[in-house]
Order: sequence, then structure tokens, then C-alpha cells
Amino acid sequence: MSLLVTGSIAIDTVKTPYGVSEDCIGGSAVYFSMAAGFFSPVRLVGAVGSDCPFDFDKVFAGRNVDLTGLEIRKDSKTFRWIGSYQANMDDRTTDYIELNVLAEDPPMVPASFKDSQYVFLANTAPVLQLQLLQQLHKPIFVAADTMDFWIEGHLDDLTMLLKKIDCLIINEDEARLLAKEHNLIKAAEKILGMGAWSVVIKKGQSGSLVCDSGGNKFVLPAYPAAEVKDPTGAGDSFAGGLMGYIAQTGRTDFTTLKTAVAYGTVVASFTIADFSVNGLTSIDRSDIDKRFEDLRKLTRF
Amino acid sequence: MSLLVTGSIAIDTVKTPYGVSEDCIGGSAVYFSMAAGFFSPVRLVGAVGSDCPFDFDKVFAGRNVDLTGLEIRKDSKTFRWIGSYQANMDDRTTDYIELNVLAEDPPMVPASFKDSQYVFLANTAPVLQLQLLQQLHKPIFVAADTMDFWIEGHLDDLTMLLKKIDCLIINEDEARLLAKEHNLIKAAEKILGMGAWSVVIKKGQSGSLVCDSGGNKFVLPAYPAAEVKDPTGAGDSFAGGLMGYIAQTGRTDFTTLKTAVAYGTVVASFTIADFSVNGLTSIDRSDIDKRFEDLRKLTRF
Repeated sequence: MSLLVTGSIAIDTVKTPYGVSEDCIGGSAVYFSMAAGFFSPVRLVGAVGSDCPFDFDKVFAGRNVDLTGLEIRKDSKTFRWIGSYQANMDDRTTDYIELNVLAEDPPMVPASFKDSQYVFLANTAPVLQLQLLQQLHKPIFVAADTMDFWIEGHLDDLTMLLKKIDCLIINEDEARLLAKEHNLIKAAEKILGMGAWSVVIKKGQSGSLVCDSGGNKFVLPAYPAAEVKDPTGAGDSFAGGLMGYIAQTGRTDFTTLKTAVAYGTVVASFTIADFSVNGLTSIDRSDIDKRFEDLRKLTRF
Repeated sequence: MSLLVTGSIAIDTVKTPYGVSEDCIGGSAVYFSMAAGFFSPVRLVGAVGSDCPFDFDKVFAGRNVDLTGLEIRKDSKTFRWIGSYQANMDDRTTDYIELNVLAEDPPMVPASFKDSQYVFLANTAPVLQLQLLQQLHKPIFVAADTMDFWIEGHLDDLTMLLKKIDCLIINEDEARLLAKEHNLIKAAEKILGMGAWSVVIKKGQSGSLVCDSGGNKFVLPAYPAAEVKDPTGAGDSFAGGLMGYIAQTGRTDFTTLKTAVAYGTVVASFTIADFSVNGLTSIDRSDIDKRFEDLRKLTRF
């Protein structure tokens, strides 16, 4: 099935207690595509500037990612992010940011992508997420991410977006902020009341909580990973595994969503084991399936 | 099977965003006994002073708790704790503490309790936990709790204790402190290397992690509770449900330990729904079994 992602492509510099990764590839659309590509062909929509040092054909070689929607803008510069993680690997600091191409008009959805059935709108201005969505003919299942900046400053747009998507994939602090409610079960219920059919709340090392408007609930711990070198991209690769599995199966019921969240959890656990996308480029689908069964065993009682 | 607990009996005053509960019954041995009594007869060993306002026969009426080991000391005062929880219900402040009887000689294990097969040594000085243990003839499965104060200041005693118990039930910050390791999987492995056959790491609202020295692992989320009024006693009633189930079955294999942890999780979710022990006195075993099945369904994929 056709899975489209719109999001950022970044030049990242990341410092963690395990080392520094300079000018490496990052961005939500990159992590998402790498992760989703294990399950389903992916259509990437994103933009970079002429300074971008990455050979995308090489980056995504053999990875099932259609780059027709990748714009390389001659007079623009690529989004840059420099960040660091403290010893606990949870607290992240943005040391430097250059929006560059992300502050310009968003990339267009190519004509050949407009029939996409499964869609992930990575974090950006809700008004842009809405514009991107309007370019699609008739998507079956749309998921979106957002962040505190849009919740605090652009709530009207975000509320409009929530009525048009099927699943909000959001971290716990943002869920609390959006719902104005600390308890996550109550927060999830409030968010469902805003429109989306389902909400997936990411709790980092504490796993995730999934609720739908039919009253179904699912709680899953994170995969107990002994190796954590760089948490960057965990959330976007989680979303990639999740949406990739949904697109692969072509089903959108709650049972499928639960399995999809488990696959997202597993893919994210590979992402954080190494810097940049290295944790994903060094594995294949059989590694994911093996760890998926392991996670099932680890949580079964 | 015979289950013995040694621990504190307290007069608690607790403030949470949901209200204040003044001079209510608390303490590790009380929460543990209330919880474990749903599964197995409990033998309580603890001490209070003559100021203690509680009618213990009434408190534990119909609850399967043998009070032969309860000492009421005429010239002593009962342990008092005043604490408050912030809005997130995770951060706890001790506003006032009076050790009183807890600073005296520990209560003796009555002769009729010395054949106890299952034992929980609630948090106290490791040297006292060792002394209590030495009074027992031949326990089958011993679990213990500890806290930062003993890890930081009495590590030699604690290390000796770890070699004599089967299961350490500890919260995540204390596990990290004891193992000098932030990653919880690695921390658990280090703690197992210190002697205990198994370790259960409590992560509060994030659930728990269980590891044994045979390489078995289990991760379980917390029960997704919408109602949290007073988290006091969550950890001790978790241990009570866990040990109560083990004593009920008479088995100590990893599969039983997993089920026991799930029961502990469920019992703790009832504890936190109300002040003091009210969350436990208002339910019966069928409520616990129903929520146990619910937790299984909530985590199954």
C-alpha cells in the first residue's frame, strides 16, 4: 500500500555521553522513511538546500523509499540542528538550530504521490500539515505528530487538524499540555474528544499508551534496551515502524494498531543503539521480527 | 503457605492535590499485609507505641492477618510521617518525621512464626533485616526492600543481606544508586551479581522490570489508572500482592514471579485510588482478579 511522509531532513550534530556525531543525516522524514521502509514502500516529501552533503540515492539504496518528492533548492540551506543529551539520556538540550529551508514554503506533493493511502505528517506548523493533507485525494489513514510550540501558539490550527486525522502520535508532555490534564488516561480521552480516532502517547523509556474513541486501550513498555547511544530519531522511527506496518497490512483496526505500536517500539529500540540512522542501516527485517517476538515474550504473563 | 512480613506501622498525615488525610494508618507492614491478605494468610511483625490510636483487630478484621507479632510498647511512641505530593503525584516531600519506636530495638519474631516459609523484609537498616532473618528456621523465598539511606551509608550490611535473599524489590532510583549504573537493564544485572536470585525494579507510573540470574526478563507497564488520589503505600502493597501470590501458589519459578508482579501491579493500582488503606479495604479478591485479566488484555498484542 502507498505510504507518504512529509517532514524534515536535517544535518544533525549530536553529543551524548557515548560520543559526538558531527554533520550526520537526521530529520523526521529521514528516520521515519528508514523505519517504515522495512514494512512498506515509502514516498518521501521534504526539502533540503544546495549545501546538503548527503547522497540520498545512496542513503536510501535498497530501502524502498521513493524520492520523487525530495526537493533540492538551489538558493536555500538545509535545516541544521545541534543537540546534546545528558547522562540519563532523557534530557535533551538544543544547543543550536537553523531552520533554513523549513522556514520557507513547504515542498509540494508530487502528482504521482497524490493517491497515497497512508500518510504521516511529521511535526511542523499545523497549518502546513493541513495544506499538505489537502493535496491528497483520499487517504485512508492519516497520522500526525506535533509539539509544544504549536500547542501553545497555534491551537486553533491544531484543533482543525485533529478533526481531519485518524491518529495523533505525541509524547507524554505534549499530551498533557494539549489536554491540560496530567493523568495520561484522562489526557488521552480529552484528546480523542478533539477529533482524532486514536491517540498514541509516547513515554520514551516508559513505553507507550494507545487509546481509541471506541474505548479500547493498550499499554506497552519500551523494549528493555541495554545499549542506548543516541536517542535522536526514536520518536520518528517509532512512527515509521507503526505506519509502515499499518500500510503493509492495509488494516486500521485496533488489533492492527497494537501490533503496529509494538513494531514501532522495536524499530525505535534499534535506532537508539547507535548514532544517526546507523542503528537502522545495520539491520534487516528479520532482526526486527526476531526482537518483536522477544518483546512479546518479555511482556507476556 | 506461611507468609511473614516485618516492617513499619505508622500514623500518617498525607496531603495530595485531592485532599488531606490526617493521622491515618500507614506503614510498610500495614500496606503489605492488607495487600498480601487477599492471597495468603499473613503474619505481621511490627511495633507501635501506647499512643497508637488504631484498633488493629478492627483494621484487619476478616483479612487473614495474624497479629501475634504486633508489639504495643507502653513507654514508646508510634512512628509518625507527614508527607505531601505535588500535582504530578510522583514527587513526594517528607514534611515531618518522628522515628520513635522504629529507632528502638526491632520487634522479636514470635516462636509460632519462626517456621515461616515466605518472608518480606520491608525497608529498614540492613543489619536489622539480617537479624530478623536469622530468627527464622528455613524460609523458602525471602524478598527485601531497601532505600537510598542504607545504600549510601550501610552498603556492607546491605551486600551481606543480598547474599541471603531471593528477591530484591527496589525502586528505579535506588537500583541505579546501588548498581552505580543508569541503564536499568545493566543495573539489574549488576545487582544480580551481588547475590539475590532475582530483582524487581519498581518504576512507579512506568511499571516494573524483573530479571533473574538465569537471564530471564519481564517488563510490565503500570495499570493505566485514571484515578490516583494518594500514591502512599503503592510500593509496599505491590510487594504484598507479589509475595501473597507466591505464598498462595507455593512456587518460586520465573513464570510464577511474572504473574506475582502482575498481581502486585494490580493491587497497587487499587491502593493509589484512595487515601490510606481505603483503596484496599473497599475491594475483594474478585475485583483484583478482574483487573488482573484486564491488565493482561491491556498488554497483549
